[in-house]
Amino acid sequence: MIVILKQTAQQEQIDRLKHFLTNLGLRIDESKGDHSTILGIVGDTTRVDADLVASLDAVEAVQRVQEPYKKANRKFHPENTVVDCGGVPVGGGMFQIIAGPCSVETEEQIVTVARAVKEAGATLLRGGAFKPRTSPYAFQGLHGDGLRLLKLAKQETGLPIVTEIMDTSHLDLFDDVDVIQVGARNMQNFELLKVLGRTNKPILLKRGLANTVQEWLMSAEYIMAGGNDQVILCERGIRTYETATRNTLDLSSVPVLKEKTHLPIIIDPSHATGVARLVKPMAMAATASGADGLMIEVHNDPRHALCDGAQSLTPDEFADVVRRVKAVRAVVEA
Amino acid sequence: MIVILKQTAQQEQIDRLKHFLTNLGLRIDESKGDHSTILGIVGDTTRVDADLVASLDAVEAVQRVQEPYKKANRKFHPENTVVDCGGVPVGGGMFQIIAGPCSVETEEQIVTVARAVKEAGATLLRGGAFKPRTSPYAFQGLHGDGLRLLKLAKQETGLPIVTEIMDTSHLDLFDDVDVIQVGARNMQNFELLKVLGRTNKPILLKRGLANTVQEWLMSAEYIMAGGNDQVILCERGIRTYETATRNTLDLSSVPVLKEKTHLPIIIDPSHATGVARLVKPMAMAATASGADGLMIEVHNDPRHALCDGAQSLTPDEFADVVRRVKAVRAVVEA
Amino acid sequence: MIVILKQTAQQEQIDRLKHFLTNLGLRIDESKGDHSTILGIVGDTTRVDADLVASLDAVEAVQRVQEPYKKANRKFHPENTVVDCGGVPVGGGMFQIIAGPCSVETEEQIVTVARAVKEAGATLLRGGAFKPRTSPYAFQGLHGDGLRLLKLAKQETGLPIVTEIMDTSHLDLFDDVDVIQVGARNMQNFELLKVLGRTNKPILLKRGLANTVQEWLMSAEYIMAGGNDQVILCERGIRTYETATRNTLDLSSVPVLKEKTHLPIIIDPSHATGVARLVKPMAMAATASGADGLMIEVHNDPRHALCDGAQSLTPDEFADVVRRVKAVRAVVEA
Amino acid sequence: MIVILKQTAQQEQIDRLKHFLTNLGLRIDESKGDHSTILGIVGDTTRVDADLVASLDAVEAVQRVQEPYKKANRKFHPENTVVDCGGVPVGGGMFQIIAGPCSVETEEQIVTVARAVKEAGATLLRGGAFKPRTSPYAFQGLHGDGLRLLKLAKQETGLPIVTEIMDTSHLDLFDDVDVIQVGARNMQNFELLKVLGRTNKPILLKRGLANTVQEWLMSAEYIMAGGNDQVILCERGIRTYETATRNTLDLSSVPVLKEKTHLPIIIDPSHATGVARLVKPMAMAATASGADGLMIEVHNDPRHALCDGAQSLTPDEFADVVRRVKAVRAVVEA
Repeated sequence: MIVILKQTAQQEQIDRLKHFLTNLGLRIDESKGDHSTILGIVGDTTRVDADLVASLDAVEAVQRVQEPYKKANRKFHPENTVVDCGGVPVGGGMFQIIAGPCSVETEEQIVTVARAVKEAGATLLRGGAFKPRTSPYAFQGLHGDGLRLLKLAKQETGLPIVTEIMDTSHLDLFDDVDVIQVGARNMQNFELLKVLGRTNKPILLKRGLANTVQEWLMSAEYIMAGGNDQVILCERGIRTYETATRNTLDLSSVPVLKEKTHLPIIIDPSHATGVARLVKPMAMAATASGADGLMIEVHNDPRHALCDGAQSLTPDEFADVVRRVKAVRAVVEA
Repeated sequence: MIVILKQTAQQEQIDRLKHFLTNLGLRIDESKGDHSTILGIVGDTTRVDADLVASLDAVEAVQRVQEPYKKANRKFHPENTVVDCGGVPVGGGMFQIIAGPCSVETEEQIVTVARAVKEAGATLLRGGAFKPRTSPYAFQGLHGDGLRLLKLAKQETGLPIVTEIMDTSHLDLFDDVDVIQVGARNMQNFELLKVLGRTNKPILLKRGLANTVQEWLMSAEYIMAGGNDQVILCERGIRTYETATRNTLDLSSVPVLKEKTHLPIIIDPSHATGVARLVKPMAMAATASGADGLMIEVHNDPRHALCDGAQSLTPDEFADVVRRVKAVRAVVEA
Repeated sequence: MIVILKQTAQQEQIDRLKHFLTNLGLRIDESKGDHSTILGIVGDTTRVDADLVASLDAVEAVQRVQEPYKKANRKFHPENTVVDCGGVPVGGGMFQIIAGPCSVETEEQIVTVARAVKEAGATLLRGGAFKPRTSPYAFQGLHGDGLRLLKLAKQETGLPIVTEIMDTSHLDLFDDVDVIQVGARNMQNFELLKVLGRTNKPILLKRGLANTVQEWLMSAEYIMAGGNDQVILCERGIRTYETATRNTLDLSSVPVLKEKTHLPIIIDPSHATGVARLVKPMAMAATASGADGLMIEVHNDPRHALCDGAQSLTPDEFADVVRRVKAVRAVVEA
Repeated sequence: MIVILKQTAQQEQIDRLKHFLTNLGLRIDESKGDHSTILGIVGDTTRVDADLVASLDAVEAVQRVQEPYKKANRKFHPENTVVDCGGVPVGGGMFQIIAGPCSVETEEQIVTVARAVKEAGATLLRGGAFKPRTSPYAFQGLHGDGLRLLKLAKQETGLPIVTEIMDTSHLDLFDDVDVIQVGARNMQNFELLKVLGRTNKPILLKRGLANTVQEWLMSAEYIMAGGNDQVILCERGIRTYETATRNTLDLSSVPVLKEKTHLPIIIDPSHATGVARLVKPMAMAATASGADGLMIEVHNDPRHALCDGAQSLTPDEFADVVRRVKAVRAVVEA
């Protein structure tokens, strides 16, 4: 960490800052330039709050040399992490497709979709039992019943299941779940992250609506700091000024993350775009960018289930996407 | 709600949409133009997911006429809500100042600050016991001990206390708290909002880092839908591309909210700017914009407590801010 | 266009609005609901300023049914436009790669790069003679001399040339240029767009740093309204809160634009990411998203030309990107 | 400027970088830490492109110590600049109000409005003759005729005039204009800035829709580098994800700019909010934040001039705003 002091910094302020830093076990290299003095801080600076130091009166600017995350950092863990999701490996050169409906509705629905997506090439089943909805008056999911139906679909198809948790108090219900999803709105629900860090389940961590890549990796670090290093990152679009799509899918985050972390990264083009007909080109683009997999919404009959079908593909459309995606993946692997 | 159909919409698609809407108890006025057909949807459309309807193949665009929130809506509740915060009224023409340290550290610290801010003109005391921190390696607060120290400070000064909750499982610890704060990162932690909706405590709901005014009001609606209509909104800066300040304080939200809702709105210039010397001009500007109050960080000795002082004022600086703010408030009330 | 009136709208206000609209030659269908009155405006509404109508006291909201652009609109021009760029067709199922250095520096440099990119598969040559630089103290380009060197490189290789214009007063210098580029910062320099609309040169119109897809199409409309319909759109990343890449490449804009317009769309992954090693994955992703081409920075010796090499590929790296991109394109076309 | 090298940086890369920097006349202080090497660059680093250096393979990060602007920088020019606008001083503790219609329409209109705003307390007259409009089909202003009418209004009232330029080729028409305005969309029209830098007219430079404070100051630097140091900055709202107001007024930029630059800063609440009834609270807030003045749209009869009235105040409303604003200003000056 580099701390650049102001020309106007008083010696008393500088001494207090140095004292504070050395108390944290850090070593200080001071170099005086013509217009400013620079402190090079050596040691484990992950505990130092850079924003706070930057806002001190004596400080012009702060620049981190080391990232504030350790366990998620590729520098300290160069090999790719492969997450075992109920027997399906995610990361490390594998390419997996998670598919299923937005919400679990009935046994027939979830089993039918599960069979269809397996047939088309999906290797994991998704489906929501707890649904984060903007409106308190909207359908909030089947909760425990939904988890039970997912388990049935897994028994029928052998597909491991991925489903979202929304509160620490629900954890007991997730015993039979293979991968626990943390939604975008809970990416910085730190109490939830801490509790999940003490489980031994794979965690699929969605990027927050307006969170940076670094904040995202810090949230992964929360889970890993608790002892659970089975984390999968999932990009699902970020909030920008553009309204032509629901969110802006940030595919550049894939190669950026591949440099910064050893964790697998998958893409959810369904939520990012919000419109079924944009899913195919964005799924292909995501694959070409080097992602480790996709998460796609599929519904058995979007035409009849009016309001769940908006961003969902039919099984046939999904099968077509899988074919194209696999051809693109072959180019990436070539 | 207005639904504009595409020229290419097929009759079967239109019929399915109409069937869906009438099943929700809504009435449909159809009007055919030269280039498009328009459905006017009459009735309680708060249950209709506008985004989903908008993404149907047959639909060109959707426009809400009524807002999706009811209890928070000024149209249905024209008089200003006044929230009783342990005897201190917030809203309805009153102007209140909440002040205190970022984190509760020691009995001496919190009692000293509480006395100082009361002396300077604050009417409520803030202080964090549960701290949402980006890094798992940073100080996370004193938890139950912090709440106990806040209670002591309240006994010493008579100031009602405002402090943040981070998880539903901690609610029992908040019995003696006067106002429960929901932080920006939990604004869409819907399970937490539902639980708080079943309490009878005033809730101070901070705006999420990248949430719209409408999403914010929908989160207030979550609390109110549970039966608790004692909600105070708190703007604390939004995430933009600008990095000169930590966040961008959106003061226009004050007059916008005054039109849309009857709930009180206060401003936190400390978190928005992240720098103590910007707090005074932004506190004055917030007051001039018509806000119902302020929330300001004050530390007894920012110079010695190095890393808590960055955005905190000293008691003397705070007293100066209060004097200026009251003079501005007098102009607003004139 | 749909205008939703407020419940509180006074008859006098409504009459004035209707008078204004009928004066523009528009027809009004009025429908009264329980809570609001809706005006359906029929006719050519491209001349109506929707923002202004929306801000009238009597108006609750405005919703466009028709887009405000006509000549750029696929509805009125369903077939893809193919732009003839000095003999190289862009759009309409063709896939073209524009490559070359950021700035033209010397004859040897531009001719060497031109030969190398042609050998690797590029079909158009780019190079900057007028450089928009944030700082007045930075190198601003060779101006007329740079254009002369580009012409030499074209004579040597046969590659048509693409280069940026920055002011209407420079137009005479662009006689021998095959495609005139409008940079992101000039996307809403309306006087420049008008002047270019009166030329018969193909225009490559970059998306502004923070402009919506609709604003971008309106800028294309400016050029086309002047009589020049040879417009190529170029996405080069938008400004968001994320700082891990220079800008956020919005690849979803490709399928969105394919629906809205008949104009070709190409992607510039070099400026979007700002870092050479991100160009390859993003070029592949752009191709998979369905873009009509790419624009890539290539320098003959990035290692020696220190400050032009940051986001530029070497000819060898570029040749590798072209190979991968062509394999992805084959999947898109399959 | 601090350059932090990667652990993996090769000596050859480092030598090339050092060679490049010393060739620019800069001195290098090298300090080797445990995990990285740091180069402290001493001298005039305004010519160094920090983004480019940051993207070199050998470089981990770059941190500027000095800002890239010199003439606009308060460090090198501590006293406030006072800009003489046709006899009216802007900056340096004065508070000025610029008012007038969006567009100049007729002699009667502009003279009537000019008299009314002067009567109410305005000290400068604004009015658009060249109008930047998103649509090529919208009214583009009266051009030369508009400038002539503004001159008439100045003769009638004595108010100096402020009006916008859109292209370098129009400069000759601006001889009788007191203050030339550069609009938000032209903030980075560098050729225009250069030409204005060679005039001796005061320039009112609006902030670009999505430009940072630093980019804004760099655009001021372009004008000042040409020899014209009479620059007034004008904040008019920035583009964010929020749609409740047209733009998000960034009032924090006022105290930030007061630290960074000696140039005056004024606020335009009319364009920022886009709605007349938000102008009053935002004008008061802007004044409380410490701005040097306001720019407000006023129309003689918004009720009749339908589409120019949306964000314009009537003369009576304007007079009320001026009264409140002056009372707030008195508190700021107290």
